[in-house]
Amino acid sequence: MAAEQSKKWILMVTAQTPTNIAVIKYWGKRDENLILAINDSISVTLDPAHLCTTTTVAVSPSFQQDRMWLNKKEISLDGARYQNCLREIRARANDYEDEKKGIKISKNDWQNLHVHIDSYNNFPTAAGLASSAAGFACLVFSLAKLMNVQEDNGRLSAIARQGSGSACRSLFGGFVKWVMGKEEDGSDSIAVPLADEKHWDELVIIIAVVSSRQKETSSTSGMRETVVTSALIDHRAKEVVPKRIIQMEEAIQNRDFPTFAQLTCSDSNQFHAVCMDTSPPIFYMNDTSHRVISCVEKWNRAEGTPQVAYTFDAGPNAVLIARNRKAATLMLQRLLFHFPPNSDTDLDSYVIGDKSILKDAGIKDLNDIEALPPPPEIKDKVPAQKCKGEISYFICTRPGRGPVLLPDESQALLCLETGLPK
Amino acid sequence: MAAEQSKKWILMVTAQTPTNIAVIKYWGKRDENLILAINDSISVTLDPAHLCTTTTVAVSPSFQQDRMWLNKKEISLDGARYQNCLREIRARANDYEDEKKGIKISKNDWQNLHVHIDSYNNFPTAAGLASSAAGFACLVFSLAKLMNVQEDNGRLSAIARQGSGSACRSLFGGFVKWVMGKEEDGSDSIAVPLADEKHWDELVIIIAVVSSRQKETSSTSGMRETVVTSALIDHRAKEVVPKRIIQMEEAIQNRDFPTFAQLTCSDSNQFHAVCMDTSPPIFYMNDTSHRVISCVEKWNRAEGTPQVAYTFDAGPNAVLIARNRKAATLMLQRLLFHFPPNSDTDLDSYVIGDKSILKDAGIKDLNDIEALPPPPEIKDKVPAQKCKGEISYFICTRPGRGPVLLPDESQALLCLETGLPK
Repeated sequence: MAAEQSKKWILMVTAQTPTNIAVIKYWGKRDENLILAINDSISVTLDPAHLCTTTTVAVSPSFQQDRMWLNKKEISLDGARYQNCLREIRARANDYEDEKKGIKISKNDWQNLHVHIDSYNNFPTAAGLASSAAGFACLVFSLAKLMNVQEDNGRLSAIARQGSGSACRSLFGGFVKWVMGKEEDGSDSIAVPLADEKHWDELVIIIAVVSSRQKETSSTSGMRETVVTSALIDHRAKEVVPKRIIQMEEAIQNRDFPTFAQLTCSDSNQFHAVCMDTSPPIFYMNDTSHRVISCVEKWNRAEGTPQVAYTFDAGPNAVLIARNRKAATLMLQRLLFHFPPNSDTDLDSYVIGDKSILKDAGIKDLNDIEALPPPPEIKDKVPAQKCKGEISYFICTRPGRGPVLLPDESQALLCLETGLPK
Repeated sequence: MAAEQSKKWILMVTAQTPTNIAVIKYWGKRDENLILAINDSISVTLDPAHLCTTTTVAVSPSFQQDRMWLNKKEISLDGARYQNCLREIRARANDYEDEKKGIKISKNDWQNLHVHIDSYNNFPTAAGLASSAAGFACLVFSLAKLMNVQEDNGRLSAIARQGSGSACRSLFGGFVKWVMGKEEDGSDSIAVPLADEKHWDELVIIIAVVSSRQKETSSTSGMRETVVTSALIDHRAKEVVPKRIIQMEEAIQNRDFPTFAQLTCSDSNQFHAVCMDTSPPIFYMNDTSHRVISCVEKWNRAEGTPQVAYTFDAGPNAVLIARNRKAATLMLQRLLFHFPPNSDTDLDSYVIGDKSILKDAGIKDLNDIEALPPPPEIKDKVPAQKCKGEISYFICTRPGRGPVLLPDESQALLCLETGLPK
């Protein structure tokens, strides 16, 4: 670094990156360190307006060490996953110059400059909503922009992948495939966009965040145990998923909802099946998850063609993908009928995100929920009890865009003067 | 039939047949009518003192039609399963003569003589405890004795199989294998005894009957849907189970509990995995079932070697097989700690069967249950809430004998004078 440069400058970049939900699931690694999957996976990127990570990264000669804050709390960057991402981005850094601010960083300087990272999720972290996917994607994307890395999002996805496997799919909007790749170094294990978020913009997504009293197995240790102990995972990865990937790509291209729904539901169920086939067995879904599935299955059967697909990640939360706005409205009515909020919950915090769906459903207050009639498909079997309180809240959203820079300095999470959280 | 015979005589046989619990599961038929399985299975026969069916079958020239009573209620014999069993037994009937009573029935008479059947389970039918297995085994066994059928229990098992697949395994005590067979007519799809009930008499079995508010998918339709829709069931039936059958037979011969437990738990979990891989998915276990598994897994891990194996059939009830009496006692303490009875339940109806296990566990009343300390393996994570009321009751039992005749007329369920239920 040029000696004459002031120690005072701080260079900063802020980016926003979406979460994603897999419709063909990733479960099982063939390389634990590089995070290489045993099968391809396909996901839908969720609208960052409702679920995203915002990350500000800053660099300054005055910083004494790499530091990171996540949701306002400082966390350690010692883990291999953070170190891998930082190392890989620094290795691809390029010269940077801003004459006005008197900043000049040459390619090799990046190795010695420390970074501050501040990351924030616009949704509850503990809810099990793939916060690590958006988080690592945003970390890698923002660091790459900061360090003038020239590689495209596909190449960046291979770096994000080393932070959290599913993070690679958050480098693009719309529908994304994570190609497992063949190379030992993981260089071809990257995300590729299948279709952008405008391709199939009729789809509406409702997430049911399930109240859970059970501690879950982390997906990292869970998938390791599945690979080692399940007698079915190999067959799934080698025989079942490759066919489903081809069918799913076709369904997405053709906006063929019945096929899309059938594959999405089957693959979610099979993922949970191999979890159960693990020793000791892993249960991510609970009775509430089962009841949501039953509600969707009954309605789909009654309609004769799927209206809604469901998928569950490594936790009890349901992600419901409705074929269009009308189906989403009817789905939300059904969900609110079966799962009314506790009486001390206010509607505004019970259904969040795109609240216009709630309006379409004719729900203005808790009385409207109580007045909902039983769905016609269960007319002979209206449950004796409703499942009050089993769902914490619903998020209404849609497919969304990939990472973006937030150039407006007011959106930065770090202070431009101190380099510390605002 | 000789014309001079009185129309008044009634000939009667009473038998008792055990239930069984599969440790390598039967799930999936290759022939729906003959009930031929897609894989071998292995079961433990349960002590009929605690779980069995008693059936009285009677024949008389005065009976106008075949009739049956099950648990005091008359039921229809029209179903194919009953008709198959009746037809197959009648086809193998032989001459019978009792000079004293003036009864003479020639081989061909049986086709025209009607039977009365009265069957009774010594356990709640609705509890999902394989009542059809014991029931059809007992029907076939008692009819065979009545009609002087000379075939051995192995041949009779092929007939009972046509009533309910798992019924064939109830023709023997101890450990039993149902060989799937190869013949199209099912003649080689029979049960064979692996070891009698004295071979491994240390084992103690505790059944946790789970309170359930959900209607379950019948195993008949469930396994049909799995065979048609699961992408994993073929691999299970053809690749996984054959190896497990060999290992399980060896484990039973060697009384090798660790291997027995590992196979039993894995195969139960895999059966539930393929149910979940079915479209629409089938959930037989519920959150309570998961909690029982977690309790067993934690304890087994803490001990370093399995103390208890668990297995679940097509419902939420847990069948726990303890390596010996001491392990059963410690298991029961753990279960009662996590799942205390509702305060209006009396202990005598909460733990039934072999109550000496309860005595060994030092439990004399509900206060003793409340006073149970948390098991040491959960010392840092004692649950905030206990799962009161989630279990309806426990049955303590053991491996048991096969079918027997009950020669004492007082044990008959039908009246010798009227041929009607007593």
